[in-house]
Amino acid sequence: MSANPTACLLVIGNEVLSGRTQDLNIKFLATGLGAIGMPLREVRVIPDVSETIIATVNEARAKFDHVFTTGGIGPTHDDITSECIAAAFGVPWEPHAEAWARLEARYEPGEFNAARQRMATMPRGATLIDNPVSTAPGFTIGNVHVMAGVPRVMQAMWANLAPTLAGGAPVVMAAVHAMGLAEGKIADGLGAIQARYPNIDLGSYPYYRSSGNGVALVAKGTEQAAVEACIAEVTAMIAELGAVPIQGEPAA
Amino acid sequence: MSANPTACLLVIGNEVLSGRTQDLNIKFLATGLGAIGMPLREVRVIPDVSETIIATVNEARAKFDHVFTTGGIGPTHDDITSECIAAAFGVPWEPHAEAWARLEARYEPGEFNAARQRMATMPRGATLIDNPVSTAPGFTIGNVHVMAGVPRVMQAMWANLAPTLAGGAPVVMAAVHAMGLAEGKIADGLGAIQARYPNIDLGSYPYYRSSGNGVALVAKGTEQAAVEACIAEVTAMIAELGAVPIQGEPAA
Repeated sequence: MSANPTACLLVIGNEVLSGRTQDLNIKFLATGLGAIGMPLREVRVIPDVSETIIATVNEARAKFDHVFTTGGIGPTHDDITSECIAAAFGVPWEPHAEAWARLEARYEPGEFNAARQRMATMPRGATLIDNPVSTAPGFTIGNVHVMAGVPRVMQAMWANLAPTLAGGAPVVMAAVHAMGLAEGKIADGLGAIQARYPNIDLGSYPYYRSSGNGVALVAKGTEQAAVEACIAEVTAMIAELGAVPIQGEPAA
Repeated sequence: MSANPTACLLVIGNEVLSGRTQDLNIKFLATGLGAIGMPLREVRVIPDVSETIIATVNEARAKFDHVFTTGGIGPTHDDITSECIAAAFGVPWEPHAEAWARLEARYEPGEFNAARQRMATMPRGATLIDNPVSTAPGFTIGNVHVMAGVPRVMQAMWANLAPTLAGGAPVVMAAVHAMGLAEGKIADGLGAIQARYPNIDLGSYPYYRSSGNGVALVAKGTEQAAVEACIAEVTAMIAELGAVPIQGEPAA
């Protein structure tokens, strides 16, 4: 997968760090990024603190091919992502004509107040990410893509952003699982298989379900044939150990 | 909250970065850490890659008072957290007598194989975190606390670990919400209230429910009286704007 561009996600928001909010954006974007061949390599959840946001954005955009952010682009005092991105890039934070026009048109006369105008204020040079849910756009500047934190809004933005991104070969996966099989029984054989497929990421995940306990083995990579061959070897190993291999992931 | 010790969480696992697994540990630990007065300041989700784990652990343990990790302490080839922690601390990774005894007792004769012995191999100087679910212990070394990734096991470890940690004043919260109220309407007043309570973290979170849309205002801090006074001011502001303030968070 070394030829694939890499992605980093910054989840910006005190509400995730305080435990108030269950994050749903990591899994959604991780899946979407894999599908376009831009695997997610790191996630950071950081607070609504200017210095932290600025430093983290600058570190991430130097280290990864693309950086995605969620959260902090609304109209209230704790929404500081946009101005922090401007500071990180060292460009002015100023009204964006198109975003301004869209938001001005959305509100009744007199209702497009100073707080709402902040949502139309962006780093100079930003290009918009359309928001069909609630109008206020996200934006891209350089290799940084700034999206909303509310999952429904973020997902709508992603649907518009994803087709504009140049990814690599999609990450594909195959899985097999077996009930009543302990990780400690398969660890040696699994390690040997992993060693034969250095370009495949072979993971072992025990599960505990009311229907029974077991272990799921998941192979991921950008070469479909290798992914399938790897899981075929795992399947054979499970059968040799006397357990029943079941293709795919266990039911939730 | 400046007197409270700080916490960082490292979620170690390809399965979260690939979108296979919905993380549940961040919210659980964020809540638990707030309750013991050790607020979570940053989360990093990182892959099962030695150099990344070692570098991140060393950065985090220098920057935060306590570091918690989840994931990567099982018996398979992708479980490399423990040996990486040893490398980060520059100490040998060696059999831990007590962990070894517990695991040896758990398995039938001949079943405590090399893979399982890895779960009893720890950085020199580690102290155990008991695991009443599946025996294999977590451990603490220095200010780093290493726990399992499976939520049920991690939560059992946390129950044993938390009472041993010296936190500060617990983080308490109060909330009020109102349906049919837009963030853009309250942003100015909210910012003014936040400015009067610099030690309170006042967040604004729009919600979209089948029962109606609205916005929730959440105050958090370590001084109960200030948290309540802050929310009382927000409540009065909502009423002044003609909306109906409802105490607490909106129902899920």
